[in-house]
Amino acid sequence: MAAPFRRVAVLGVGLVGGSFALALKRAFPDALVVGWDRPEVLDRARDRGAIDEFSAHLTVACQDADLVYVALPVVGIIEQLPAIAAAAPPAALVTDSGSTKAAICRAAQRAFPSPENFVGGHPVAGREHSGIENADADLFRAAPYALIAPVTAKPVAQSDDRVQRLLAVVEAIGALPVWIDADSHDRLAAYLSHLPQMAAIALAVTVLEGAGEKAASLAGPGLRDTLRLAGSPYGVWTDICRTNSHLAEALDRLRESLEQIRTRLQSEDLRDDFARSNHLYKMLRKLE
Amino acid sequence: MAAPFRRVAVLGVGLVGGSFALALKRAFPDALVVGWDRPEVLDRARDRGAIDEFSAHLTVACQDADLVYVALPVVGIIEQLPAIAAAAPPAALVTDSGSTKAAICRAAQRAFPSPENFVGGHPVAGREHSGIENADADLFRAAPYALIAPVTAKPVAQSDDRVQRLLAVVEAIGALPVWIDADSHDRLAAYLSHLPQMAAIALAVTVLEGAGEKAASLAGPGLRDTLRLAGSPYGVWTDICRTNSHLAEALDRLRESLEQIRTRLQSEDLRDDFARSNHLYKMLRKLE
Repeated sequence: MAAPFRRVAVLGVGLVGGSFALALKRAFPDALVVGWDRPEVLDRARDRGAIDEFSAHLTVACQDADLVYVALPVVGIIEQLPAIAAAAPPAALVTDSGSTKAAICRAAQRAFPSPENFVGGHPVAGREHSGIENADADLFRAAPYALIAPVTAKPVAQSDDRVQRLLAVVEAIGALPVWIDADSHDRLAAYLSHLPQMAAIALAVTVLEGAGEKAASLAGPGLRDTLRLAGSPYGVWTDICRTNSHLAEALDRLRESLEQIRTRLQSEDLRDDFARSNHLYKMLRKLE
Repeated sequence: MAAPFRRVAVLGVGLVGGSFALALKRAFPDALVVGWDRPEVLDRARDRGAIDEFSAHLTVACQDADLVYVALPVVGIIEQLPAIAAAAPPAALVTDSGSTKAAICRAAQRAFPSPENFVGGHPVAGREHSGIENADADLFRAAPYALIAPVTAKPVAQSDDRVQRLLAVVEAIGALPVWIDADSHDRLAAYLSHLPQMAAIALAVTVLEGAGEKAASLAGPGLRDTLRLAGSPYGVWTDICRTNSHLAEALDRLRESLEQIRTRLQSEDLRDDFARSNHLYKMLRKLE
């Protein structure tokens, strides 16, 4: 199958951008990938075969591209969008991989002359360790890939041919596309990803305060598994915390659930909380 | 090495009792294990080679035993202790595997004529699935095993010879003995085990309320791992919730940590919460 985009600029060649480049080149050997990042990252990305060309200048990297894939932290995407809109050819489609979508899509509306130049995206895939070293062509396999419908009167199916080609790329790299609007995405991401992260941080802080250094000698495997996200670095979450407007409410609701459990510790009513929790557990493992 | 105890009564032959019996018999082939449980459990325990003899009558099962190992739910242990104290030979040592220790040790003080007849214990090991079917001679390997010092004026090292022999058994089954008082145990267990469990239930309930059935289609692997404990059944936790007096305070402190994180979402101060959390993560993996 011929590459849906012949020349692809990948802006930010870390874990996500690097994995996208590797997956794209595996699916479409005739696609040419141009990288833009810090010089040492570009060197490593080239050594790993993720990129064919590179430039330290955003304008040069975007030249003649028909797809621009922006894989920077959320605030970095928002800051660079005006420059990207200026550098990308008018026929190019610009998409991104940011973890929150409302702020980015608002910035894109301001930056691009036509709403059809930009389609927001969010591959729901990640690793504990970031960077091009950990990039993997299989990162997106079987993972949901949120796509934000362009703000036009036309339904997605009838939209711009470029959007259909982006969809073909998402499917070719093994991901499961899910069309959703930006605000609904952020609300779902708050509950499914950002709240669990903050809950892990809060639990770790509380355990450390309550049990101190004895935590290591008396903890069982349950705590270690539950706190897998507690190892995630602040830098990965800074922008998400600042741009997901639903996260504060999700934290409030978690505190309410904890308060309810506290009042039910001596009561049979707690059985209901466990039943709902067991249901979600099975749902996440597709057992029911 | 000759068995420190020749005849061992195991009261409750589920995951923990069955695993203890299997591990004991592997370490000391000359030890004879007598099981007490429901008839169908005893049949399966005998088929698995965990017990040599069994009885449906507690008095018969305890006859001539020199160690009585009580592996029932916490409230079951408390309820049976008077009958066990009456049935066990005066020379026998009684120990248990309950997940909270203060209420059990108070009940033992009331039930036994001498405080040296009973030593509380808590193997910090478990599985997602309970029952004799999942019993495993390696369950306790490299896992902490809390032992509650008997309430006597003598330090543990000079205490009753039976206590030294129990210690030898704990070490022989591969566990790491940790001497601790009952209240400190319950406080640590609240933070290291019972709070993480309740946090997983609260998070699951909140995620299900906030994201509904869409949780399954847009969730990533982080949520699934974080909610591993959410699959635990209510029955395993009922007694723990009712008997750990530190759990309510631990839940309050978790709510305070969440409140702090909420106020810091837009602030660099959040870096400090991540730093402490990252520290615990590494500690639990012995990386620092």
